[in-house]
Amino acid sequence: MAYGSSAVGETYAPVGIENETGAGGFVFLCEHASNYIPPSMGTLGLDSEALSSHIAWDPGALGVARALAGLLDSPLVASGLSRLLIDCNRETDAPDLIPVRSELTDIPGNADLDEAARRHRINLAHVPFHAAAEAVISARCAAGLRPAVVSLHSFTPVYKGVSRPWEIGLIHDRDPALAAPVLKALADTTTHVVGDNEPYSPADGVFYSLDRHAQSLGLPHLMIEIRNDLLKTPAQEQGWARLLAPLLKDALAGLDRSGGTHA
Amino acid sequence: MAYGSSAVGETYAPVGIENETGAGGFVFLCEHASNYIPPSMGTLGLDSEALSSHIAWDPGALGVARALAGLLDSPLVASGLSRLLIDCNRETDAPDLIPVRSELTDIPGNADLDEAARRHRINLAHVPFHAAAEAVISARCAAGLRPAVVSLHSFTPVYKGVSRPWEIGLIHDRDPALAAPVLKALADTTTHVVGDNEPYSPADGVFYSLDRHAQSLGLPHLMIEIRNDLLKTPAQEQGWARLLAPLLKDALAGLDRSGGTHA
Repeated sequence: MAYGSSAVGETYAPVGIENETGAGGFVFLCEHASNYIPPSMGTLGLDSEALSSHIAWDPGALGVARALAGLLDSPLVASGLSRLLIDCNRETDAPDLIPVRSELTDIPGNADLDEAARRHRINLAHVPFHAAAEAVISARCAAGLRPAVVSLHSFTPVYKGVSRPWEIGLIHDRDPALAAPVLKALADTTTHVVGDNEPYSPADGVFYSLDRHAQSLGLPHLMIEIRNDLLKTPAQEQGWARLLAPLLKDALAGLDRSGGTHA
Repeated sequence: MAYGSSAVGETYAPVGIENETGAGGFVFLCEHASNYIPPSMGTLGLDSEALSSHIAWDPGALGVARALAGLLDSPLVASGLSRLLIDCNRETDAPDLIPVRSELTDIPGNADLDEAARRHRINLAHVPFHAAAEAVISARCAAGLRPAVVSLHSFTPVYKGVSRPWEIGLIHDRDPALAAPVLKALADTTTHVVGDNEPYSPADGVFYSLDRHAQSLGLPHLMIEIRNDLLKTPAQEQGWARLLAPLLKDALAGLDRSGGTHA
């Protein structure tokens, strides 16, 4: 793949689309798939440890999203650029759109950006990601389908010194139609510690993508957060995807049977 | 590279950026770099011959653009999708934005598109391409540079039955600052048959990208068209790039010495 792994002078892509032709009922989004920063933007004043940590991306999220897109034969739209440059899951006027501090780390390269630099970040990553997501989702809608939009994320086990007990969290807002049956299935059939609107909730401003591409259109949707210490290997990524795929599929089938309470 | 060469189910990128960190004075654009059509969109009713012909892309243009970006150490922004889906070098209200006929070929898959389908095409390819171009160019401007924007194209030797004598054409509009010295150098130092606003001119609506990303900003710019029967091999692509690179470099140096008549 071209995004997230380029070296100096190589091609990179602000956004990638996978399996667009998939016949499944989902569209997966991965806003924090990559920690790639174009060479022209240097290191933002950060060391390599910070640039590979959760402040730069959601480690493991792309692996889970890709596996789910495969298991459920559905498209995936993934950003190719680090959230340190710009957070594709934030309103463009959000204070943490281009974070000057993330968790406990100051980001010198994001301090005192002028309007031109802000605009550059928006055009480089935010605009292409959402244009691609909109294209993929609106094409399905135009074909008479009502895809469920699922956004994949990972979270750090310790945030600002506080341990987080949840192994997986499901984030939902005004319409829990898709979240509720998945929460129930996780409770009924697994021993995982599951967060319900934890470790984040829409009040934290993390629902931008899903609101824009699903909630506002009346499409089923769900944000999934997995603790990143449980996503250290491809096998773990695959494992979460194998666990979640049938739950998502059953939840969506339940919605379809109920005649679309989510409309 | 990920764009322009994907098979079913593979990743593809609506736009790619190469050598963004290059220290040279140019930004190269290639709107018709690829004939890739996502599997979800089928074949638009065309046979494989049409899908690989000049109506689908500008064969050879990416090779020349990439070689120039290397020789002049400058960024390249290239579309990853076929012009048959949408022409990134047209206004979004142009009648040939999504062509229903190209040269002598009807394009069934483009007939009678509704607004949703039109919107999908725009978001899939046009928006990401121009967002990426704007990001790359505006970042240079914000850094106090005034990059020259050069768009690379190729044209078919016979169009609607009429042979075209030109081997290369330079297209320019209200500001010939960069075009004029390159035209003169080609006339003085080569035996090529050179078109001056041939085989197209801005009156044909082909100046959209350069107007948007350069002329309207007062940046030097030039559109280069090379006849595609002279771009059959990588060696030919490299040859044109080696010919053009010093001419472009000298032309830009002349502008800089003259203190920017193009401002």
